Amino acid sequence: MDARFSSVVPFGAVWAQGNERREMDLIERILNGDLRAVGRLITMVENATPEAVAALKALYPHTGHAYVIGVTGPPGSGKSTLADRITGELRELGKTVGIVAVDPTSPFTGGAILGDRLRMQRHSLDEGVFIRSMASRGHLGGLSRATNDVVDVLDAMGKDYILIETVGVGQAEVDIMRTAHTTLVVAVPGLGDEIQAIKAGIMEIGDLFVVNKADREGAERTVLEIEMMLEHGQSDDGWRPKIFKTVASRGEGIEALTHGVLEHREFLFEEDGHGRKRRERTRWVLRGLLEERLAARAMACISRRGGLDPLIEKIAARETDPYTAVEDVLRTLGL
Amino acid sequence: MDARFSSVVPFGAVWAQGNERREMDLIERILNGDLRAVGRLITMVENATPEAVAALKALYPHTGHAYVIGVTGPPGSGKSTLADRITGELRELGKTVGIVAVDPTSPFTGGAILGDRLRMQRHSLDEGVFIRSMASRGHLGGLSRATNDVVDVLDAMGKDYILIETVGVGQAEVDIMRTAHTTLVVAVPGLGDEIQAIKAGIMEIGDLFVVNKADREGAERTVLEIEMMLEHGQSDDGWRPKIFKTVASRGEGIEALTHGVLEHREFLFEEDGHGRKRRERTRWVLRGLLEERLAARAMACISRRGGLDPLIEKIAARETDPYTAVEDVLRTLGL
Repeated sequence: MDARFSSVVPFGAVWAQGNERREMDLIERILNGDLRAVGRLITMVENATPEAVAALKALYPHTGHAYVIGVTGPPGSGKSTLADRITGELRELGKTVGIVAVDPTSPFTGGAILGDRLRMQRHSLDEGVFIRSMASRGHLGGLSRATNDVVDVLDAMGKDYILIETVGVGQAEVDIMRTAHTTLVVAVPGLGDEIQAIKAGIMEIGDLFVVNKADREGAERTVLEIEMMLEHGQSDDGWRPKIFKTVASRGEGIEALTHGVLEHREFLFEEDGHGRKRRERTRWVLRGLLEERLAARAMACISRRGGLDPLIEKIAARETDPYTAVEDVLRTLGL
Repeated sequence: MDARFSSVVPFGAVWAQGNERREMDLIERILNGDLRAVGRLITMVENATPEAVAALKALYPHTGHAYVIGVTGPPGSGKSTLADRITGELRELGKTVGIVAVDPTSPFTGGAILGDRLRMQRHSLDEGVFIRSMASRGHLGGLSRATNDVVDVLDAMGKDYILIETVGVGQAEVDIMRTAHTTLVVAVPGLGDEIQAIKAGIMEIGDLFVVNKADREGAERTVLEIEMMLEHGQSDDGWRPKIFKTVASRGEGIEALTHGVLEHREFLFEEDGHGRKRRERTRWVLRGLLEERLAARAMACISRRGGLDPLIEKIAARETDPYTAVEDVLRTLGL
C-alpha cells in the first residue's frame, strides 16, 4: 500500500480520494513509520490545518511511549552537536530517536532559518533517527503547540526517545521545555555576563546541567557557578540536579551524560511510573491549546461583528482605553 | 500634597483611605511626574492588580504623546550601552526619556536578573530620565502587556521619548518590539552563525540597523550581510531601512544614529501624523490584552467546574486527546 501510493499514484490522485479514506491511510502509514507520511503530517501540523487535528486525534491513543528530552541553552553553546552525540549514544543502545530542532524564526516569513541542520547529517542515512526543524509560526503559543504535536507524531510513529532542542531565552522556549521529561540546560565557559544571565532564566527548569566546551578556560568556574545557583533552588520532587562536563565536538563526556539522562528517567519511573511528569506535560499542552483556541474563536466572533478596527479608532482617539475596550469585547462574547 | 504623602503620612495610612480618593491621588501625582507614585504604579502593573487597571484607565487619556523606540539584538551586542548613549543625545536636545529594560527572567521567581543596570547609573541623578527594569511574569503574553502598560505610564508622566530594550530572540520579545514607533536592530561583528541566525529572526522588524562594536574586525562584512538581507525584504510603508556603525562604549556614531531615529520619526509623521503606526501599536496591544483576559476568564470558569485535573487524567489514560478535550471545554464555555 505504502509503495503504491508513494511511487505509482500521483500526489493529486491521492488527494482526490475521500477524506476519511485518505486520513486512515495517513494514520496507518505513520504508525508503520512511513517517513513521507510523517513529513506530510508535520507540514500539515505546522500549517494548522483541520486535517492535521483529525490525524492527531486518531494518533493520540498510540502516543505516550516515547521519552522526551529537552536540550536548551544560549546561542553558541553547542546544543545541536550535543543532541547529535546523545542520539549516537541512544542508537548504540538500540533505541530509535526523533529530534525536533526549534529555530527562532522570522515572525513574518515563518520560515526556519537554520533549516535541517547540516551537522545533523551524520544520522541522515540512519532509519532509526528522524530529524525535523520547526519554524515558529504566528502568534499565541503556536510554537509550543506545533512542537508538541510533532512530538506526538514522532511518539506515535514509534520513536523511543525524542529530543527537543531550543534556544533557551524566550518564554515560548521555556514553555516548550516544560513538556520534556528530562531537561538538559547547556552552558559554556567564558560567555559574557548577559548570556550567563539568560542562562539563569532557564536554570530552574533543568534536571541535568551540561558545561559544554569544557576544554575551554573557566570550565571549573562555570561548574561552580551552577553549583551555587542550584544550592539556592529546591526541587519539588526530590531529584538533585547533576552537572556534567562535555566536549560535544569530540564526543567527550557524552556517555556519562546519557547515563545521567537514563538515571533521571529511572528516578521518575520509580516515583510513580512517570505519572506525575506525564500529568504535568499534559497540563501544559492542554493550557497552551486552550489559550490558542480561545483566542482563535474570540477573534472569529469579533471579525463577524466588524473586527477590531472600530475599537482601535476609538482608542487612538482616546475615547476609550484598551482595558475598557477589552472588557466590552468580553462582555459581548458573554464571558 | 505630594510632599505630605511621601514624607509624613505613613504608607499604611495612605492605603487606609477610600479607594477612589487614593486612586485620584496616584493619578495626579503621576501626571505631576512624582517618581515614587510612578514606581508604585509600575509595581502594581507588574503584579497585575485591579487597582493598576483602574489607574491605567484613568491615565490613558493623557497618553499618546511619547515617541517609542525599540532597541533589540542578541545578548552581548551592547544594547544597554547604546540605549544609554541615545538617551544622552536626546537629553542634549532637551528631551526627557524613559527607559524600559526587559530582562529575560526566571519563569519561577519572576525576578529581574540584571536588575536596574549599573551602567545606566550615568543618568540616575538626571530627573529627565526614568529607568525601569521589567521582569517577565507568568504566562500568556504577560510580558508584552506589562511592558506596554509601563510605556503608557511613562508616556502619561510626560516623557518625550521611551526606549524599550529587549533581547531579540523569543516571540514575546518580537511582539514587544511591534509596539515601538522606531525599532533598532543591533548586530555585532564576529558572532557565531547561530547568533547571526537569531538576528535574522528579528531582521524584518527593524527600521534602523546598528552594527555596534564596529571597531572590531568584520564590521564591514556584517554591514554587507545586513544590506544583502535587506535587499530581499520589502517595506510596506516605503521606508528604506538604514544601517549605522557605532562604538557605543566610546560614544562613536551615536549622533548620526539618533539623527536617523529622528529622521524615521519625521518620515512616519509626514505619512499621516503617525496615525498608521499608532493604529498598528494599538492593534497589538489590544490583541495581547484580549488573549490574556480571555484565557484568565476561561480558566476561572474551568476552575469553578472542577478544574483541568479530571481532563488531564482522561488524556493521560488515552480516553480522550488534548484536541477533543479542548473542544469539549470550549463548548461548555459556550464558545
